[in-house]
Amino acid sequence: MIEWLSSFGQTENGGVTRLLYSENWKRAQTALKHKMEQIGLEPYFDSVGNLFGRLRGSDPESKTILTGSHLDTVVDGGKYDGAYGIMASFLAVGKLIKLYGIPRKTIEVVSLCEEEGSRFPLAFWGSRNIQGVYSLTDVITLKDAEGVRFLDAMKQAGFSPEAYTAPKREDIERFIEVHIEQGSILEKSGNSLGIVSDIVGQRRYTVMVTGESNHAGTTPMNFRKDALCVMAEFVSYLTKKAAEMDPQLVATVGKVTVKPNVPNVIAGEAEFSLDIRHHQEQILNRYCSDIFAFLDKLTAELEMSTTVTNWMNVKPVKMDRKMNEVLQKIAEKKKIATLEMVSGAGHDAQVFGDMCPTSLLFVPSRNGISHSPKEFTSVSDLEIAIEVLSELLYQLAY
Amino acid sequence: MIEWLSSFGQTENGGVTRLLYSENWKRAQTALKHKMEQIGLEPYFDSVGNLFGRLRGSDPESKTILTGSHLDTVVDGGKYDGAYGIMASFLAVGKLIKLYGIPRKTIEVVSLCEEEGSRFPLAFWGSRNIQGVYSLTDVITLKDAEGVRFLDAMKQAGFSPEAYTAPKREDIERFIEVHIEQGSILEKSGNSLGIVSDIVGQRRYTVMVTGESNHAGTTPMNFRKDALCVMAEFVSYLTKKAAEMDPQLVATVGKVTVKPNVPNVIAGEAEFSLDIRHHQEQILNRYCSDIFAFLDKLTAELEMSTTVTNWMNVKPVKMDRKMNEVLQKIAEKKKIATLEMVSGAGHDAQVFGDMCPTSLLFVPSRNGISHSPKEFTSVSDLEIAIEVLSELLYQLAY
Repeated sequence: MIEWLSSFGQTENGGVTRLLYSENWKRAQTALKHKMEQIGLEPYFDSVGNLFGRLRGSDPESKTILTGSHLDTVVDGGKYDGAYGIMASFLAVGKLIKLYGIPRKTIEVVSLCEEEGSRFPLAFWGSRNIQGVYSLTDVITLKDAEGVRFLDAMKQAGFSPEAYTAPKREDIERFIEVHIEQGSILEKSGNSLGIVSDIVGQRRYTVMVTGESNHAGTTPMNFRKDALCVMAEFVSYLTKKAAEMDPQLVATVGKVTVKPNVPNVIAGEAEFSLDIRHHQEQILNRYCSDIFAFLDKLTAELEMSTTVTNWMNVKPVKMDRKMNEVLQKIAEKKKIATLEMVSGAGHDAQVFGDMCPTSLLFVPSRNGISHSPKEFTSVSDLEIAIEVLSELLYQLAY
Repeated sequence: MIEWLSSFGQTENGGVTRLLYSENWKRAQTALKHKMEQIGLEPYFDSVGNLFGRLRGSDPESKTILTGSHLDTVVDGGKYDGAYGIMASFLAVGKLIKLYGIPRKTIEVVSLCEEEGSRFPLAFWGSRNIQGVYSLTDVITLKDAEGVRFLDAMKQAGFSPEAYTAPKREDIERFIEVHIEQGSILEKSGNSLGIVSDIVGQRRYTVMVTGESNHAGTTPMNFRKDALCVMAEFVSYLTKKAAEMDPQLVATVGKVTVKPNVPNVIAGEAEFSLDIRHHQEQILNRYCSDIFAFLDKLTAELEMSTTVTNWMNVKPVKMDRKMNEVLQKIAEKKKIATLEMVSGAGHDAQVFGDMCPTSLLFVPSRNGISHSPKEFTSVSDLEIAIEVLSELLYQLAY
């Protein structure tokens, strides 16, 4: 079924490109809608294109148990990221209908329209509309790389902005998402299932160090104001400090621009990104204040200047402890090797985690690879998570 | 006279662009030829476009005392680099002719055709032809940024490759060059004249560190093979080591390319330049073996790989100690504050230094700036070096 869904947007090298509101995206959502109908769900779209498949419970007072993930992909991404979560929920609920028929509480399978932020510079468009945080005003000015306006793309896909009614939901009792890990912790530790305790907070910065560009031959080492050397010292320090402070703290400098970027000229400017993640706000605060104090001291000594711009600050989100305990028990009973872990990546579950009790399950990613045609999880691991999810939904809704 | 010469190739922002065999280069050489004639020198070109102005000595057995510098500039360079050295030699000899007439030994003023390597990827085309190291075979395949072949540009400027006869000179007794310092050592130490003892050797490398590109959120610090972190450690180490090993040793990482160069992805590759200079081969050897051993150890521990490519290896060259002592005495007599110093940049004097006793004199560069329209030396400093050069030539040739 993973293969079936990946056929919508398949790329030449075996990857998938299924961007929000694209032709392939529309074909996939429409095909999923039919599949939902076939197994006895009532499918419907909200006004931004989130697809729900409702299994109405016998208790008319019951709120909804929501489960699913996102349909969109990055450019030339894998077959599993997002798609597997939709499939897992769909198959788990299909199994329950076959075995037990109508539940007491309403269950809905959701194929969220967007999470990646790959077409337009905005992520979580699906879940944040359900949360009531985003609305049309957030996308009015957005265009994709080809200059197509967000609202035009939306209309093109059949979701006319004129017909927009806020997709905010007040009736969701809990949310459960299954996703590939996108890391190699499960694989390396030999576990089949990850039960996520927390989704990390993320802070992203751009740091600009300004020194003095000078002749590499005629400027003695002690006369230099080398911006690249300061960057190097800082990167070494922050890397060591992250490992020291907490084993789950990660800090990454991934992007660097040096000026003038010439072999025989001392760098006058070094601009670089800094991505910091941990699941405790307190650790993030302590770490950031420590490393930026180091940077300030370093540049002050050299009479150089820095500017630090914080352009992303996402708070950590806790998954539901009680529901995780239930999941743990289910796995134990089925003799499945699980690992309680922190998600270092962002997921729709972090949006729902602010609204209602939420759980997030991970399956192993081979070599930790994701956002690539090489993304892979074994069929047995895919089935294990579906089995656990199905049992959880049974315990919650029947 | 500096202003006059800078008019050939003047740029909009007050700089000079005078590339080898360009129209401005040709106009400048031709104008200089006329000036040489006017003061009583016999001007002539060799077959690559080096312009000589000969003042024939009364002793027919005498070899030639050569003095001058290069005419070409970098793109949007300054008015002093190269040009000042030609002017200084021209004015010094002009003064001697006026005061003392014909010398005993032949003196020639030279305007070397090329030193910078700014138009074609080859430097010292002028002096290395005189040395007999370069010939047409070295430039057959070269093209400039606009695709013009070296040999076509040469022909265009009036130096037909068909008429090439090796410009190698066997009759040069000694060479004296005056140049701007292109650093701030003279200015900072309050000296008007630098007497160069050595020109540094230069080694340039490209270092490629290969790690593993990975997700910045889901890859714990101890699982990472971050190429940028290795580069940072190495840059910090080599910078500290250079300062420790010898105050005149300089090492610079000026150019960096990181892949994939994305904020939330761990760098899988970091490629960077490394420029190392010192005037003692022994120190260069010791330093290089130390830092590359460090790099090997560092990457071996992390199970990462590096390739180090050495693409430039210029040996240090000593200037003539005896002639420098004469220069020192002249300066003392004239109460000029001098500094014996090492040249961290390459100069034509290093080519001649391999052929014959050679001296190189430096005048201060304001704020150490060169290769820029902001290049500046005060008129009084310019005059001091001409005065000393003139006295030296008098003592040597009259």
